[in-house]
Amino acid sequence: MTQKINHQWCLVTRPFGLFKETDFEWKEELLPELKEGEVLVRNLYLSLDPTNRGWAGEAATYMPPVGLGKVMRGIAIGKIEESRNHTLPAGSLAQGMLGWQEYFVDNGQNLSPLPWDPSLPLTAYFGLLGHIGLTAYFGLLEIGKPQPGETLAVSAAAGAVGSLVGQIGKIKGCRVVGIAGSDEKCRWITQELGFDAAINYKTEPVHDTLKKHCPGGIDVYFENVGGQILDAVLSLINNHARIALCGLISQYNAKKPVPGPYQFPQILIKRARVEGFIVLDYLERAEEAVKALVQWHLAGKLKYRVEVVEGLMNAPAAVNKLFDGSHQGKLIVKI
Amino acid sequence: MTQKINHQWCLVTRPFGLFKETDFEWKEELLPELKEGEVLVRNLYLSLDPTNRGWAGEAATYMPPVGLGKVMRGIAIGKIEESRNHTLPAGSLAQGMLGWQEYFVDNGQNLSPLPWDPSLPLTAYFGLLGHIGLTAYFGLLEIGKPQPGETLAVSAAAGAVGSLVGQIGKIKGCRVVGIAGSDEKCRWITQELGFDAAINYKTEPVHDTLKKHCPGGIDVYFENVGGQILDAVLSLINNHARIALCGLISQYNAKKPVPGPYQFPQILIKRARVEGFIVLDYLERAEEAVKALVQWHLAGKLKYRVEVVEGLMNAPAAVNKLFDGSHQGKLIVKI
Repeated sequence: MTQKINHQWCLVTRPFGLFKETDFEWKEELLPELKEGEVLVRNLYLSLDPTNRGWAGEAATYMPPVGLGKVMRGIAIGKIEESRNHTLPAGSLAQGMLGWQEYFVDNGQNLSPLPWDPSLPLTAYFGLLGHIGLTAYFGLLEIGKPQPGETLAVSAAAGAVGSLVGQIGKIKGCRVVGIAGSDEKCRWITQELGFDAAINYKTEPVHDTLKKHCPGGIDVYFENVGGQILDAVLSLINNHARIALCGLISQYNAKKPVPGPYQFPQILIKRARVEGFIVLDYLERAEEAVKALVQWHLAGKLKYRVEVVEGLMNAPAAVNKLFDGSHQGKLIVKI
Repeated sequence: MTQKINHQWCLVTRPFGLFKETDFEWKEELLPELKEGEVLVRNLYLSLDPTNRGWAGEAATYMPPVGLGKVMRGIAIGKIEESRNHTLPAGSLAQGMLGWQEYFVDNGQNLSPLPWDPSLPLTAYFGLLGHIGLTAYFGLLEIGKPQPGETLAVSAAAGAVGSLVGQIGKIKGCRVVGIAGSDEKCRWITQELGFDAAINYKTEPVHDTLKKHCPGGIDVYFENVGGQILDAVLSLINNHARIALCGLISQYNAKKPVPGPYQFPQILIKRARVEGFIVLDYLERAEEAVKALVQWHLAGKLKYRVEVVEGLMNAPAAVNKLFDGSHQGKLIVKI
């Protein structure tokens, strides 16, 4: 067997503010011979996610930071190219923390075989299913607990998670108002996805427009961004509102401490619940979510879109699209 | 029947910062003749509570603001002095929003007869039972959901609510760490009430001392104060921590907007839950709480102390004791 070369993006500097391309170094290594029980995965698609910024920082989040000099952590889909593990035959597909690299060697314990309908494109495992779909499904339904007739607000509403959340909210009978960062995104979520209203936070006054679109107040908020948008929502929540805290992307690149919401006392006054969640806590219930998500998708009620960046080389340049909002749909790198 | 004179403290200015005595005006009125169905209550004890400051402000909280020129709102206990309502005979006791005044006329709908053990002193209906006891009981047990072996932190731990919360936490098998504002208070909660540790936030570094006393992190936090103490706690919470948001007394007198906790992202990272509550939402379940509270008290497991200020005249001067922490125990005015 000829030894293969693996190219990798390694994290060499902890970012201060946005990622810089120089925070990463392009390295190559010779892949080792497989040991008994191991597989060699050829990575096909890499998911770029806001949480990548947290992993690259110095502080532990819900996972330890990526070590300096180590391959950047990333969720990816790959094809088993060689196998010495009968549970993962060559040619089969798998998902996992394969990293920002071309190949991944594993004993199988860090790989989830992709078992779903081959009629779905591979990118659906990021845009509709996988961590994105499960985040939307469990975050909204388990934490937000939307009831028919309630008003659901969603921030980063044209994002990978937010766009699913809003559609699931519609399926559950809510009035859904999305907050997004461009007119195109606002049009997409209202005209294509069926949101009741959308607010372009870059051009419209968020509090006043939100108040107009939520005349009965806000019962459920799916939070992806934090900052002023969170304050605007808190000022409009109803008694016993539920806030599913999924992300705080507006502050991931902050260079100094960021204050919490000025409207924090509203949580008390309105007897509201703010609850953080991480999709990892729901992996055991993945089957339930995937079943529903696929069913809704096939029924035409749950759409998604992906933006595919070509080439692993371009990952460091592409990742900041998550933070300036210039991407449209789930951001994926085709390796 | 001779017409009686009623003396009242009316709110005439909205406080800016702490209450000033000039925010109130001492008025007298002639009491009207009772109509059929009405009772005349002679107010005996007035409860002073941090939430009074919220009621006096301009903004609606969980109740509308007290109208300017109107009697200051307050929870009080009184004795029915005259009755034209057979459900509330003369001589019986009742509790309600009787206000900062000597008498209260009502049709009975705003009065709760005090049904409990006559061996308990009347002040127990503020210090142990009533809104204080129910706040501690439901806030800790329903929102905090403490489990045996978990670590419970309590702020304003020598306060009326906090001191009960910590003791209920001990009854439920928690390690209990209290944060209070004087060495005397710290001694009281550890030596008399059985808290495992106490921190004097005025003389000790809260984060470091809390970390020392909570080596396994914090699972449940009962929040009465907000501000830097909340940040210190958030930085030490465990995964799936529960924060019962009862009060934010450190900011009730703020003269400008107060930022929320800088450690807000910990709620996400630690999948924590922050939930506000108001005791009014639990009144229907009062019997359950009162039964447990009385039982624990009679078994010597639940102590309380009250500071009784003599004379309704002194209410405006006394109320600020709540905010400078100079009181010891539940603050009550004997009318």
